[in-house]
Amino acid sequence: MAMRCKRCRGAAVIEVRRHNAAFCRDCFFHYVGQQVTRAIAKHRMLAPADRVLVAVSGGKDSLALWDLLLGLGYQTDGLYLSLGIGAYSERSKRVCEEFAAARGATLVARDLAAEHGYTIPEAARRGGRSSCGVCGLSKRYVFNRAALDGGYDVVATGHNLDDEAAVLFANTLRWDTAAMARQFPVLEATRPGLVKKVKPLYRLAERETAAYCILKGIDYVVEECPLVGGNTQMRHKETLNRMEEQSPGTKHSFLFGYLERAAELLRVADVAELAECSRCGMTTQAPDDPAEAPVCAFCRSKARLVKSLPVVEGSGEPQGGAPVDHFEVTAG
Amino acid sequence: MAMRCKRCRGAAVIEVRRHNAAFCRDCFFHYVGQQVTRAIAKHRMLAPADRVLVAVSGGKDSLALWDLLLGLGYQTDGLYLSLGIGAYSERSKRVCEEFAAARGATLVARDLAAEHGYTIPEAARRGGRSSCGVCGLSKRYVFNRAALDGGYDVVATGHNLDDEAAVLFANTLRWDTAAMARQFPVLEATRPGLVKKVKPLYRLAERETAAYCILKGIDYVVEECPLVGGNTQMRHKETLNRMEEQSPGTKHSFLFGYLERAAELLRVADVAELAECSRCGMTTQAPDDPAEAPVCAFCRSKARLVKSLPVVEGSGEPQGGAPVDHFEVTAG
Repeated sequence: MAMRCKRCRGAAVIEVRRHNAAFCRDCFFHYVGQQVTRAIAKHRMLAPADRVLVAVSGGKDSLALWDLLLGLGYQTDGLYLSLGIGAYSERSKRVCEEFAAARGATLVARDLAAEHGYTIPEAARRGGRSSCGVCGLSKRYVFNRAALDGGYDVVATGHNLDDEAAVLFANTLRWDTAAMARQFPVLEATRPGLVKKVKPLYRLAERETAAYCILKGIDYVVEECPLVGGNTQMRHKETLNRMEEQSPGTKHSFLFGYLERAAELLRVADVAELAECSRCGMTTQAPDDPAEAPVCAFCRSKARLVKSLPVVEGSGEPQGGAPVDHFEVTAG
Repeated sequence: MAMRCKRCRGAAVIEVRRHNAAFCRDCFFHYVGQQVTRAIAKHRMLAPADRVLVAVSGGKDSLALWDLLLGLGYQTDGLYLSLGIGAYSERSKRVCEEFAAARGATLVARDLAAEHGYTIPEAARRGGRSSCGVCGLSKRYVFNRAALDGGYDVVATGHNLDDEAAVLFANTLRWDTAAMARQFPVLEATRPGLVKKVKPLYRLAERETAAYCILKGIDYVVEECPLVGGNTQMRHKETLNRMEEQSPGTKHSFLFGYLERAAELLRVADVAELAECSRCGMTTQAPDDPAEAPVCAFCRSKARLVKSLPVVEGSGEPQGGAPVDHFEVTAG
């Protein structure tokens, strides 16, 4: 028997098992829009007058997000950061440019190598942090800084339910309570150097953002980043997918149960004292020793990565000054 | 190359990957004893003068526990509860009796059908709670009550690292913060009707208690309970086993990270107000409506299960009075 749309009883094109629902094309768009507006309203993510910078990678999540925010009438520009991952980065940038051009929207482009002297593959070859680690750190830094420079009120990212559940799962498995305490669909700008961050897609599953793009005819980069292979987050996603298969709604109740019942209790674990980085002026965690100059994780990582190149900002790698993990950014 | 014992460099008989160790027979006994004495000392589980009631099922965990506590010189009696699961229960009881007889130790035997009018298979057939649910509820009730009746200071159960990690995993997946707040290696007797409960094996993995029994020549019931097939806890154990395989120490850091960093923060979620059950006098959660007589989960479940039999204690199933999940007991 063919599935019927839960809303209009027409022929369904997609099933959403965790909501015990199926939708036709139009009602699916309605459902997706409803989930996003509910997310925005519940967490006061965006005000109508806000200038929003949408971090776009060329993947399904970030382009679906930009499309949805444009459709809802928000003032959005896109931000694309070139990571220097060869043809993958070039194709990703082109997809974002075409998306923006087709909608008459503005795409701000930044380039990691031009501005900071390294690409992600170079960083990966030099060891230290994993390539995903350096990439996340670089994106968080550049997005925040670009929003500050451009006078934007909010940075919006395309993190979906699967991303958020997987990050929470990883943090919970080792009870990294400080990281857990900072995981929330909205992070307010608690200091002058920080821009507000929001995740309007946190109620939508990965396959729903993919379906949205396909049904809307949005061209996106389907391939995973070539450097991501077998990382921990992918392993956790597979574990969660197996549990979701056996018991639909597992991811939803894990993430939402956390947000509703536990996040508040763990909030006290986020005890990081913040300070201004002595090199770049951005916000970082204050060093334990008050006599020591604060240096943010990005400046320390960059100094280590580019020290063999002619232009070096720092003279070594000082102790202390752990990263302010204000926001986790995925490749999706 | 043959594995060497980490402690004496002799030929090892067992590897303990999460501790990056391997042990010969004697050094493995030393390791097991050390983990148990560390658990007892860290959580002040037992004092030398305590009269300890060890809940034994005939499985590897509870018999290893009894053997270890006897070896450490504690004053212990065993308690076996017949659950009426046919030949499985009969064989389990015999194994416990033989264990006790060989050591000149006292085994207290109770019988669920004789004392309360139902067996676990009967309860399973009548629907309502799952057989594992009724079994856990019945054991918690009978163990606590038997310890009170016999004037014991502490009830000790054989919960191991795998059990505790799986229960925590289940509660964390749905963020049942109240249940999480009560999961701890020791639960003090906070009211006159409650007996202190301890889990001295929480630092040892399932395969270590099995290896202990095999190497010590302790005869135990290897088969799982025939009613347990495919329950949620077994599924969660499989998920954790897969993660442990990929990343040894996952269970350890999940459980210990919780106990060290999160349990205290979640403690406030255990807000249950306690009262005396109006039928049996044991401790239960107070009903929301203060005009209502408190009835504990065990008495409610029993009334429902035996209402078709001649002897009925209650006249129906009152609302309210959720179970005091003072302690989770497994079949192991």
